[in-house]
Amino acid sequence: MTKNRLEAFSDGVLAIIITIMVLELKVPHGEEMQALLPLWPRFLSYVLSFLYLGIYWNNHHHMLHATERINGSILWANLHLLFWLSLIPFVTGWMGENHFAKVPTGLYGGVLLLAAIAYWMLQQAIIREQGRDSMLARAIGKDWKGKVSPALYIVAIVSSLLNPAISGSIYLLVALIWLIPDRRIEREIKKTEQGAATNADKPRG
Amino acid sequence: MTKNRLEAFSDGVLAIIITIMVLELKVPHGEEMQALLPLWPRFLSYVLSFLYLGIYWNNHHHMLHATERINGSILWANLHLLFWLSLIPFVTGWMGENHFAKVPTGLYGGVLLLAAIAYWMLQQAIIREQGRDSMLARAIGKDWKGKVSPALYIVAIVSSLLNPAISGSIYLLVALIWLIPDRRIEREIKKTEQGAATNADKPRG
Amino acid sequence: MTKNRLEAFSDGVLAIIITIMVLELKVPHGEEMQALLPLWPRFLSYVLSFLYLGIYWNNHHHMLHATERINGSILWANLHLLFWLSLIPFVTGWMGENHFAKVPTGLYGGVLLLAAIAYWMLQQAIIREQGRDSMLARAIGKDWKGKVSPALYIVAIVSSLLNPAISGSIYLLVALIWLIPDRRIEREIKKTEQGAATNADKPRG
Amino acid sequence: MTKNRLEAFSDGVLAIIITIMVLELKVPHGEEMQALLPLWPRFLSYVLSFLYLGIYWNNHHHMLHATERINGSILWANLHLLFWLSLIPFVTGWMGENHFAKVPTGLYGGVLLLAAIAYWMLQQAIIREQGRDSMLARAIGKDWKGKVSPALYIVAIVSSLLNPAISGSIYLLVALIWLIPDRRIEREIKKTEQGAATNADKPRG
Repeated sequence: MTKNRLEAFSDGVLAIIITIMVLELKVPHGEEMQALLPLWPRFLSYVLSFLYLGIYWNNHHHMLHATERINGSILWANLHLLFWLSLIPFVTGWMGENHFAKVPTGLYGGVLLLAAIAYWMLQQAIIREQGRDSMLARAIGKDWKGKVSPALYIVAIVSSLLNPAISGSIYLLVALIWLIPDRRIEREIKKTEQGAATNADKPRG
Repeated sequence: MTKNRLEAFSDGVLAIIITIMVLELKVPHGEEMQALLPLWPRFLSYVLSFLYLGIYWNNHHHMLHATERINGSILWANLHLLFWLSLIPFVTGWMGENHFAKVPTGLYGGVLLLAAIAYWMLQQAIIREQGRDSMLARAIGKDWKGKVSPALYIVAIVSSLLNPAISGSIYLLVALIWLIPDRRIEREIKKTEQGAATNADKPRG
Repeated sequence: MTKNRLEAFSDGVLAIIITIMVLELKVPHGEEMQALLPLWPRFLSYVLSFLYLGIYWNNHHHMLHATERINGSILWANLHLLFWLSLIPFVTGWMGENHFAKVPTGLYGGVLLLAAIAYWMLQQAIIREQGRDSMLARAIGKDWKGKVSPALYIVAIVSSLLNPAISGSIYLLVALIWLIPDRRIEREIKKTEQGAATNADKPRG
Repeated sequence: MTKNRLEAFSDGVLAIIITIMVLELKVPHGEEMQALLPLWPRFLSYVLSFLYLGIYWNNHHHMLHATERINGSILWANLHLLFWLSLIPFVTGWMGENHFAKVPTGLYGGVLLLAAIAYWMLQQAIIREQGRDSMLARAIGKDWKGKVSPALYIVAIVSSLLNPAISGSIYLLVALIWLIPDRRIEREIKKTEQGAATNADKPRG
């Protein structure tokens, strides 16, 4: 019950964040195709942020699917994650309006970095409650994606001062790393369920 | 559980998309009836898009009702559909503000076409997971509506260059084709449930 | 399952409608108390519309609680109701900005009237599916509130041409009529449940 | 069932309130770091309100978790609470835009005070329905936080006329008081569940 409501609230916030970003795509004046041209950096930044929020929703979904118990720390760690994600429409709009200029592109990476840290803290809070031997702890394992992403964000933030195009490419790269489906948790859930099934099938006498 | 959350997130996004469109209906200055007159193309485009989003919600609802298992591809195919639908408020506003001018009316059809393709891809991803003999695969059958709509969108996009009134009429026509209730999935579900009931009623000895 | 998703989608849309109205309360320039003064008609219209949307949510909630089966007509009748309710932020903003002027106040009543008709159509669609003897049909009974409200809206629309203050008072009156808790459906549900309990308690031999 | 929908609607409204506040953080013109500087009071007020709404969601969540039955008064008391919370984006924006000036900072406290009163009324309505001996009544106990907060809000409102910095510190203090996890309800639920388990384990004869 408690878990359901945490998911419902997170889904609500993520759905709104992902949708209000589109309000930054202001309807242009003028009815010709060229009226749309000045919008392309905003559109590009919208697509990038849509991808990131989709990835967060997807991973959040899988992580909570493997979660059995919720406590107060998990609730607050989740709100902390939602706080940083709620700033994504702002930095997306700033980066898009300024055509991927240095400072906005760096700040975008800063928010992604803080969201990644918040996600890691949420993950730790959940593992602490479920136990080191829980399905989730096993499923996450070495978590190389979770470790590589913050490092890449820091590289992108630093390189935004030199050339924001590098930063943009890194943001896209990280998104693609995550888009490749992460079968770890799915596999572990299946394994656990099959294990349960096998145990249930064993003769009891 | 997984399916519930996919539905909840999609419902959230669709509910927000359908509602933020109304923000494009800006409160007019002036308190007389004629202050409302310049709003009619926006209102018309709002009604059209409300219909389309209602149809998508309805079909999405039926399709997922007949879905039993979810996987990673389905999650992403669903986000892909939501992406194109999230652009509907933008093209609705552009088309309405420019009184159904050529390019905005054509672009509206372009977004409808891409959403239709995304819906078809989601349908394929779901069928692939449930199996060719699943309730959903049988329910969809020949899917003439799903095949005719993209063709009509393409006709509408082309004809927008000549006369956007033709395109507008085609968009309305497609909406009406879908509004006529599609009893296929409902019927198939009922059939399956009755089949199950009949089997359960059969004497077991 | 189907009912749950209808409720979730309606809850989403109603929650968004009720909340985006507050965006019409634009943050005033100036930091003194008198900067707030020009906002009072908007605030008043916000309170009125919040009340109405709260009443609709409440009644919708009770009606669906007593609903057992959903079909395609119910889904569309529900979307039809949501369409008229989605226009409430627009007419609220127009009425508030123009200090309850004649035409905006009349139009507000027009949208309330159309929403009331849409609610009645939804109610009929639900009763048709559940059957004349269903819990819901018995619970609604003579439905005097549902019959008196549209009549009062029409009176308010007509009198808006003479004196919009009369219309405003009528809108408030209708809201108060509905605020007085409607125990009909609650009572009928309790009766049915007790009946079921009594039957279950009866000795079966 | 009824409780689920009350939670879903409240989650929806709270999720939207918490997210539309971010729309007040308008994307600045200019691509340099100093373009962000004028935004810091808005950002600060955003963080404060995010904290408050997070606390409300958290407490609401726990309170309803311990609730077993819903009635009409509870539905309306809940809508009353949501009404005051829906004004938080407005007062947040006003306070932030005016750099924590006297009147806006006082009004912010006024809305917090009215929301606190509405929360207390909701709590009373729920306890009345569950009974004085219910799990919730025991869990809340003396409710010192619930009693101290309104008193502190009143102090903050009064001191805003002298020095709004004092008010701001008090708002932060109250938030921190609530952030310290309130284990009362969690503990009481656990106790009740263990009690039930113990009773179930007892030999029955």
